[in-house]
Amino acid sequence: MRKTILTLFAAFSAVAFCMAQQSLSGGSQIMSPEIHPDNTVTFRFQAPKAIRVQVTGDFLPPSKIEIPNYGTFEMPGMADLQEGAGGIWEFKTGVLESELYNYSFIVDGLSVKDPNNAYIQRDISNLMNYFIIPGERADNYQVKDVPHGTVSRVWYHSDVLGKDRRMAVYTPAGYETSGKKYPVLYLLHGMGGDEEAWLCTGRAAQILDNLIASGKATPMIVVMTNGNTLHQSAPGESGEGMYKPYNCGSFDTSFEAHFKDVISFVDNRYRTIRKQSGRAIAGLSMGGGHSYNISLNYPKTFDYVGLFSAGLNIVRDNGMGQIAPEMYENLDSKIDRLFKNGISLYYIAIGESDFLYDSNKELREKLDAKGYPYTYLETPGGHIWRNWRIYLEDFAQRIFK
Amino acid sequence: MRKTILTLFAAFSAVAFCMAQQSLSGGSQIMSPEIHPDNTVTFRFQAPKAIRVQVTGDFLPPSKIEIPNYGTFEMPGMADLQEGAGGIWEFKTGVLESELYNYSFIVDGLSVKDPNNAYIQRDISNLMNYFIIPGERADNYQVKDVPHGTVSRVWYHSDVLGKDRRMAVYTPAGYETSGKKYPVLYLLHGMGGDEEAWLCTGRAAQILDNLIASGKATPMIVVMTNGNTLHQSAPGESGEGMYKPYNCGSFDTSFEAHFKDVISFVDNRYRTIRKQSGRAIAGLSMGGGHSYNISLNYPKTFDYVGLFSAGLNIVRDNGMGQIAPEMYENLDSKIDRLFKNGISLYYIAIGESDFLYDSNKELREKLDAKGYPYTYLETPGGHIWRNWRIYLEDFAQRIFK
Repeated sequence: MRKTILTLFAAFSAVAFCMAQQSLSGGSQIMSPEIHPDNTVTFRFQAPKAIRVQVTGDFLPPSKIEIPNYGTFEMPGMADLQEGAGGIWEFKTGVLESELYNYSFIVDGLSVKDPNNAYIQRDISNLMNYFIIPGERADNYQVKDVPHGTVSRVWYHSDVLGKDRRMAVYTPAGYETSGKKYPVLYLLHGMGGDEEAWLCTGRAAQILDNLIASGKATPMIVVMTNGNTLHQSAPGESGEGMYKPYNCGSFDTSFEAHFKDVISFVDNRYRTIRKQSGRAIAGLSMGGGHSYNISLNYPKTFDYVGLFSAGLNIVRDNGMGQIAPEMYENLDSKIDRLFKNGISLYYIAIGESDFLYDSNKELREKLDAKGYPYTYLETPGGHIWRNWRIYLEDFAQRIFK
Repeated sequence: MRKTILTLFAAFSAVAFCMAQQSLSGGSQIMSPEIHPDNTVTFRFQAPKAIRVQVTGDFLPPSKIEIPNYGTFEMPGMADLQEGAGGIWEFKTGVLESELYNYSFIVDGLSVKDPNNAYIQRDISNLMNYFIIPGERADNYQVKDVPHGTVSRVWYHSDVLGKDRRMAVYTPAGYETSGKKYPVLYLLHGMGGDEEAWLCTGRAAQILDNLIASGKATPMIVVMTNGNTLHQSAPGESGEGMYKPYNCGSFDTSFEAHFKDVISFVDNRYRTIRKQSGRAIAGLSMGGGHSYNISLNYPKTFDYVGLFSAGLNIVRDNGMGQIAPEMYENLDSKIDRLFKNGISLYYIAIGESDFLYDSNKELREKLDAKGYPYTYLETPGGHIWRNWRIYLEDFAQRIFK
């Protein structure tokens, strides 16, 4: 009987997978992406009826798009796959540097995930496959044989917003048993992301695990909030039902104003070092703007501030009104206060072709004029996750030392 | 300057979203799925170049597939969308009962996610969109305004398997501050799933939050392991690199043999009730088989056993060999031992058209012949998640009382 049921299982699976057209666990055994020993990569996609199959991803040279009055924007490049036997299309890259890359197929104009790759990231509401070219850079994004921290999704109440919200919290390996107190890095996502973004696309847990295990970073708690105050949480984890993430992003003081609820919750729930020297705040894009505003409006709270491709000085009404308009006012004098109070690290990082380059340059010039010290990192490329992972890895090694 | 940068953001976003063809946050404002007040649903998909667009999902009557020598299998049904203006295809369902349904589009034979729906589930390595028809049934799968438990991804070491592995753990609201000890439900997934399956497709956290808040279930810890002993964890969260989840599922005694490491870790890490009355084990499909074997081979360990569409008496060599062959032997006498030792609930549930129906019927007949008491639930439909959510909700109300 055992054999029969197992065969039934196999038959059921085969039918299920056949119905799903292509699949990881059965059906056609296509290898995609295939990473060759020389770090070239072959993409394959079976689509006998397709007229055109393309791949788009951050491993291709970006295409530049000119928008009148606004300037030049970089977008992921595209390449054509060539059709071969059996309706299997192929594209082979050149030699790629070690990195975590993402991609999607475009089949006759439609974005399609690679059915042969289970590795998926979500960013700005889009799904993308990803792959890793091993080596010095991307090894830091891999799960290695080191002690792993725990990642929790936790609910907190915000009095300011009048609702429960969800955050992701990384506690370093050993937290549960050490009895020690830990410093906290508040790590904020960009517009369109949510409390999952730094974990999924940012590989924050892997980066922290590896840095801590090698002694390059101090063991720390990392708190990843949801920066869209209209929402409680990531899609599917919210009481709002099947909302679409339209109008996400908060540039209306509400995120900044509610941040005291976040700090208070974290200091009560976790064994934290509850003073300035035990707190860092950093964020990418919108989250860089949030970090900028919060560090200026919460004096003597953070000893380390990281602005990653930061969207600075942005105001938008999300329909809630500005619940703390003073938070976006008198920022120049608050900068003076910040540096007068003393801060161990003010960190600005941006890609050389980022569309936010100029506004970050203005901030640097302002700091230079006043003689306020900061650390600056400029990297190739634009407003992309590749850079934000690099900035996190660099920033995390510089704090709580 | 503020306004300019915000507009730059908007321009960047517009370009990014345009490149992604269709999108949630920009581009064409297509509503899909649109759930009408009468609980009919309209699906929409923009594909001007497509020849045929279909939708497949569990809200359609299943199609039956005959496999010679094996019998009839049920697969999700399919329906054709009709092309309208602007290359927007549409399909409208009949009135649907309250439920959480999943679906995918099939565009000229290729499985494509709905770009207008951020709600995604992964099952057996396939991605599917989902939607909820509100009402008595599906309200239990929603995030409600009740206290929420914490869900953690935690790493444990298995001496038996010689590696670190990842599990998901639900701790009920109040766990962090109550100081109390809690009972533990070990909840196991099916073949092709992983430690994320019960949380994502199974909505376990929402089901438990809602049952506990309404007093229908006792506050409990829920431990969700990874049943594929070849792997450490879900794709992307493993040290194995970019493995494909081929050959997943463990029917070789290794999962059962390593389960003592799971129990030991959980009892050491969490405030648990460390005795038989404080432990339940349940699983679906392969996980039902695991629950069956583990409850038989760990005497006086579990007081509640749930077999959900269980795959019973399955043996397969995954290449590791049987590390504890005795675990799959003498099961009839171990059944005698289980009921002689005493157990508070032995629970069997299955769909009336499940392909595993007969083997579960054989087990029931065996128990009947010996006069061993058990609770039996039979529901419409086959080997599908809809049933497993129903079984979890029913089972969770019957344990630890």
